[in-house]
Amino acid sequence: MGITNLFRDLPESVPEELFQTLIESGSVRIERIVSEGHASPPGFWYDQSMDEFVVLLQGSAVLQIEGEDQPQVLQPGDFVNLPAHRKHRVESTDPHGKTVWLAIHYPS
Amino acid sequence: MGITNLFRDLPESVPEELFQTLIESGSVRIERIVSEGHASPPGFWYDQSMDEFVVLLQGSAVLQIEGEDQPQVLQPGDFVNLPAHRKHRVESTDPHGKTVWLAIHYPS
Repeated sequence: MGITNLFRDLPESVPEELFQTLIESGSVRIERIVSEGHASPPGFWYDQSMDEFVVLLQGSAVLQIEGEDQPQVLQPGDFVNLPAHRKHRVESTDPHGKTVWLAIHYPS
Repeated sequence: MGITNLFRDLPESVPEELFQTLIESGSVRIERIVSEGHASPPGFWYDQSMDEFVVLLQGSAVLQIEGEDQPQVLQPGDFVNLPAHRKHRVESTDPHGKTVWLAIHYPS
């Protein structure tokens, strides 16, 4: 049974943020996200129909959640559980290396 | 919205392997597991009714999957997707520090 590593097979450069589905089963989707200096476009907010549990595994990021005064800095191991339709955006990710996330999308 | 870190709030000692449910929603369960030198009891095999996506985040472990010749060594970032009823056991975990896992249990 294959073992895969979340920190391997990272692309050399990441011109566009990379979303890779690892598991899709029924209504559950597990994905790896690789960022490098990416941010959500100005004015863009994620507004998702499913809950999302997301953990930052490598790198760092600044996450803004709608209705909160301050964006939050995420370091490796930090996770947040975002209920469906809780709008959020990524203000920035580490510009000097690859940020790796694991996201689990699941029904509310 | 609370941010929590998977590597923090680890118990000082781990006399019994620690299973902490982080999310339980419908039929999806996300848990953190903390091991320290633990192994599955002799002859014990996990035989689960749901699929399990499990990633080792810190430490190391040796995982035996039924029907495979060799157990596999897991290092940080390694993940494996175990279909329901695919029997498996943990032969060992790092005796010198805490091994942290993130497991997602979801319906087949």
